[in-house]
Amino acid sequence: MTLARKLAAEALGSALLFATVIGSGIMAAALAGGNDAVALLGNTLATVAMLFVLITMLGPVSGAQFNPAVTLVMALRRDLAWRDAGLYVLAQLGGGFVGVLLSHAMFDLPLLQLATKVRTGPGQWLAEGVASFALLLTILGTLRHRPAWLPVSVAAVITAGYWFTASTSFANPAITLARTLTDSFAGIRPADAPAFIAAQLAGALLAMLVGGWLFGAE
Amino acid sequence: MTLARKLAAEALGSALLFATVIGSGIMAAALAGGNDAVALLGNTLATVAMLFVLITMLGPVSGAQFNPAVTLVMALRRDLAWRDAGLYVLAQLGGGFVGVLLSHAMFDLPLLQLATKVRTGPGQWLAEGVASFALLLTILGTLRHRPAWLPVSVAAVITAGYWFTASTSFANPAITLARTLTDSFAGIRPADAPAFIAAQLAGALLAMLVGGWLFGAE
Amino acid sequence: MTLARKLAAEALGSALLFATVIGSGIMAAALAGGNDAVALLGNTLATVAMLFVLITMLGPVSGAQFNPAVTLVMALRRDLAWRDAGLYVLAQLGGGFVGVLLSHAMFDLPLLQLATKVRTGPGQWLAEGVASFALLLTILGTLRHRPAWLPVSVAAVITAGYWFTASTSFANPAITLARTLTDSFAGIRPADAPAFIAAQLAGALLAMLVGGWLFGAE
Amino acid sequence: MTLARKLAAEALGSALLFATVIGSGIMAAALAGGNDAVALLGNTLATVAMLFVLITMLGPVSGAQFNPAVTLVMALRRDLAWRDAGLYVLAQLGGGFVGVLLSHAMFDLPLLQLATKVRTGPGQWLAEGVASFALLLTILGTLRHRPAWLPVSVAAVITAGYWFTASTSFANPAITLARTLTDSFAGIRPADAPAFIAAQLAGALLAMLVGGWLFGAE
Repeated sequence: MTLARKLAAEALGSALLFATVIGSGIMAAALAGGNDAVALLGNTLATVAMLFVLITMLGPVSGAQFNPAVTLVMALRRDLAWRDAGLYVLAQLGGGFVGVLLSHAMFDLPLLQLATKVRTGPGQWLAEGVASFALLLTILGTLRHRPAWLPVSVAAVITAGYWFTASTSFANPAITLARTLTDSFAGIRPADAPAFIAAQLAGALLAMLVGGWLFGAE
Repeated sequence: MTLARKLAAEALGSALLFATVIGSGIMAAALAGGNDAVALLGNTLATVAMLFVLITMLGPVSGAQFNPAVTLVMALRRDLAWRDAGLYVLAQLGGGFVGVLLSHAMFDLPLLQLATKVRTGPGQWLAEGVASFALLLTILGTLRHRPAWLPVSVAAVITAGYWFTASTSFANPAITLARTLTDSFAGIRPADAPAFIAAQLAGALLAMLVGGWLFGAE
Repeated sequence: MTLARKLAAEALGSALLFATVIGSGIMAAALAGGNDAVALLGNTLATVAMLFVLITMLGPVSGAQFNPAVTLVMALRRDLAWRDAGLYVLAQLGGGFVGVLLSHAMFDLPLLQLATKVRTGPGQWLAEGVASFALLLTILGTLRHRPAWLPVSVAAVITAGYWFTASTSFANPAITLARTLTDSFAGIRPADAPAFIAAQLAGALLAMLVGGWLFGAE
Repeated sequence: MTLARKLAAEALGSALLFATVIGSGIMAAALAGGNDAVALLGNTLATVAMLFVLITMLGPVSGAQFNPAVTLVMALRRDLAWRDAGLYVLAQLGGGFVGVLLSHAMFDLPLLQLATKVRTGPGQWLAEGVASFALLLTILGTLRHRPAWLPVSVAAVITAGYWFTASTSFANPAITLARTLTDSFAGIRPADAPAFIAAQLAGALLAMLVGGWLFGAE
């Protein structure tokens, strides 16, 4: 694949994924009549279904990362050149921003917003670390043992993460930044983003170490 | 396969699919006690489960399109003769109309109805464009890279679409027309159908262009 | 496989399947606080998950039919000897009865009950015909084109059936009889069972004819 | 694989699994506004999604048992050395305890708790026997006939078990002990644990006998 196609796949996939995360949150909250568990069910189904689709069709093009924490680990493992990794992250951020605009436009909301939802504290940070650790371990383990099932595995670990982590499992620095730009169900206050991102990177790096040993050659 | 079998598969599949979309909407709205998010969960599950089944068993017969926007793209890509494409669309419309009657008959409702639900405005039209773009891109990408997973991919992109697009993702001109004929959860006012169909065709054609480049031979 | 193993598989599978249908109905109705759509979501998930499991592990032993309408079609197609078909039905009925007792015992309910829920009328009968037609067509089409996906296909068509048919898709004469013996969410009044069974057999036979043509050799 | 890796996989998998069972129970109950069926839907989705992931990535390392009842059956069938089986159980208990602490820490709850939820009586014990029988039979049958589908099968039988057994299907002595240490949705009073564990072992041993005959060589 040419680099242009890879970057287009990362940008397009991030746009559709982030539009799904935010759009389904808006839809679900609007319909659920205040029952947040029902809203989270709809938000979960939509997110992981789109993840499955994007990894199925774009995985063979770019790896379907859509996530700077994944891209960083791939670069550290030398599965991706550092220069390409930098461009991947730019594509993820740019595409993701378009996804935010798209979700707001579809629901007739102001295109540019700032989130006000507070998401902070040690429990939330631990949750982001755990969620990112689980996501990266899943990617490394599935690529090692059953690569054809990667789209299902990633969808499944995010399904679990939406419910068992106190933060509902952002597990992605690009999506964390994108979600600071929406004042809806999926939003996060800009001031709370840096700690989330730090926790995500810590969890991802820990998974790289553990996975390197657990899934490495003997 | 003979053409007769292909047309029978398109008509039969459209009948079962449209009966499922409309029937599960009636059932879900009746049981959900006013919580539309719960109703949409049931509507989503039923629709995508039937999609999976129909593509699994009828895909090898006719391609399991059930959707004039898909048929148009296939004809433009020369994967289907234009004459057959015209007959496919007639089969989809005819079968789909039977599906509408079937769903009304099962629930003891008047067989012939006209929808009154308003679905209009730029947000809705953009949503139909996005939904149809995502559906066609999924079909082209999955056929290119992992054809055995097509039934799952299509089910998954519609699962996401029901929740992240403001219009709940009709993404199909035949089903749009069929849904003008039911005054229930899934209905759409006849006057609102043309703009939906235009947006669907625009999204599908855009996906053909993008997918042709992204998934084409190098 | 010996016949004894096949019959044991049919009896054991029917017991677990029917216990799941009835038990999950009891559980879901008890927890759902009157929201029948939420109850039906739980009932659906449990039923189709168990169907998947039973067909996966018992399919290679006995065919995992658990359903006299399926057994009848298999005998008419000469895929099963008539004598074995008769024994299959007895195993399904006997195992299914144990399943009913088991579900009542687990929930501390009277073991022997008679259902009082009314399920009758042309809409319901049409629904059972459609549901059984769809189930048999799914089995014949999936066995013909993608046999490895049979457990998923059957689970998916029942998922759809629970929601889009007005009767919630019994689609099985043995389970219809078993459900006359429980006065719970899944019950059906004994007087209403014969018409359900007649509609199921009619739908199954129609699917045999249509499927024989649609999926047959050219 | 070295034994150290196997034990690490059992401990790590048990930690993530038990944190998911308990954490998603806490999240779901907090969001569901008193509708326990909605809470159980979220709890089910998260649990079985994580089960799928863990068996997919850790199955090739350690067998992904996470359950002393499974380990006992594997040792009795001579698929696992007795000494290793003992170490497996220690890893499951140790990892599971970490999982409990993790779930409490993420939700800012006291780390050490004792459950007060009463779960007792013949119906509950029968339910645990049935759930463990179904789980072990699923594992033995799927390993015998379709080993590549094991992660899906186990997830599916637990999906069904959460709804059709009166006890919501613990089916695992290690998780039973872990759940005595959380006073939340998923808890069980310590005094009620021994009878649950006895029922689980009885169900597992019965499945070993039945499965040995039903799935054995002819």
